[in-house]
Amino acid sequence: MVKLDKDERIEDLQCKNLRIIQNKNLYTFTSDAVILANFIKLKKNEKCAEIGTGCGVIPILLSAKTELDKVVAFEIQEEMARLAEKNVMLNNLEEKIQIISDDVRNYKQHVPGESFDVVFSNPPYMKRHEGLKGDSRAVARHEISLPIEDLCKTAFGLLKFGGRFYVVFSAERSCELIECLIHYNLEPKRMFFTENGKGKIVLVVIEAVKGGKHGVEVLPQLTTNDLSGDYLEILQTKQFLRNSKI
Amino acid sequence: MVKLDKDERIEDLQCKNLRIIQNKNLYTFTSDAVILANFIKLKKNEKCAEIGTGCGVIPILLSAKTELDKVVAFEIQEEMARLAEKNVMLNNLEEKIQIISDDVRNYKQHVPGESFDVVFSNPPYMKRHEGLKGDSRAVARHEISLPIEDLCKTAFGLLKFGGRFYVVFSAERSCELIECLIHYNLEPKRMFFTENGKGKIVLVVIEAVKGGKHGVEVLPQLTTNDLSGDYLEILQTKQFLRNSKI
Repeated sequence: MVKLDKDERIEDLQCKNLRIIQNKNLYTFTSDAVILANFIKLKKNEKCAEIGTGCGVIPILLSAKTELDKVVAFEIQEEMARLAEKNVMLNNLEEKIQIISDDVRNYKQHVPGESFDVVFSNPPYMKRHEGLKGDSRAVARHEISLPIEDLCKTAFGLLKFGGRFYVVFSAERSCELIECLIHYNLEPKRMFFTENGKGKIVLVVIEAVKGGKHGVEVLPQLTTNDLSGDYLEILQTKQFLRNSKI
Repeated sequence: MVKLDKDERIEDLQCKNLRIIQNKNLYTFTSDAVILANFIKLKKNEKCAEIGTGCGVIPILLSAKTELDKVVAFEIQEEMARLAEKNVMLNNLEEKIQIISDDVRNYKQHVPGESFDVVFSNPPYMKRHEGLKGDSRAVARHEISLPIEDLCKTAFGLLKFGGRFYVVFSAERSCELIECLIHYNLEPKRMFFTENGKGKIVLVVIEAVKGGKHGVEVLPQLTTNDLSGDYLEILQTKQFLRNSKI
């Protein structure tokens, strides 16, 4: 049995009975994670690594896709890593999801380099020192722990040649990300932007291939909110398995 | 009086009585040029250069914006450059638009470097040797005369620090373009994609600033065709002056 700490609550992910514990004092997952999980395509027996798993929501959602074999999920914040482990246990996914509580830049101490078919990440978006608060939410939202260069370099180091890197990032920094991906030989092959229902483009979501040729398929923008600000059905986790539009 | 050659016809641009001669045997301008012309913002007395003017349609459209002061428009193909000159005369724009029939990479023989406030280009999209035909249409559509690196390097060389580069390109090559722009210190600051009304993203349109800081405003995608394949009103030149949505 998983024991809840005070400040923790269990939420139903409305997807194959998956549940997730969130702690109101820590960073809680957003629709960005659900969008990215929807976009990730896995083939049978592919080995995955995650850079910054937070509470573990993306690998847990991916477990609902039968193709998921094994994910090694790094989380630099000990408190978040403990919560992710709890969530793995809560959903009986210990066989599939391994949480590693360390800076992903130390990955060679834990896993062999260039050994993964797929790497994914919902990393912090904001630049260092932009509206910094100094708690776990700040670490998850800001580049305190992982600048964009280290993100791309680490994804490159983890991936096999031909492996795929899935990443969601702020649209405002999309060009920086694209430039850095290409610098690290991670060629964007599929890409789309999200729009908030009020004409503002918010996120970019990219699938890049290590050693891929030039040429990207840009997909139509995804509207994530209606005019009232409510999330559209496409983003709700109960729609997760049915959503194959992206 | 401008004399028409055989194979030439005069078209009404439906914008402030502007007209344009096109030659059915040469490359004729497309909606891409109108989209780019709509996107270009000019302030009073700004000096402009164009890389590859074709029949001269973009500077002619820009002349309808009162802010246009002076454009130096390069065209590598002599036949096209002659046609562009005819079009300038036809619209009595000799004071504002100067056509230079030369490879833009030789710009230093004609104009001082780093002297322009604005550079714009609707360059060939396709890579060398992709479906090559060997006529003027091929030169206009392919990188026969100007690879993407030379495009960015030349724009950098023409622009003042802080100057703006406007470019339309195939969405499929958007990431290559972004990477190359940043490499040449032309930072994308505004960007949007076009969608053909059937869910296919076709073009990327970028405003980059020489020496600009990181951070791009991504604008909502622009739908250019309706489901029947007809161009939407926004792209018709008679809408040109009224369109300030982008």
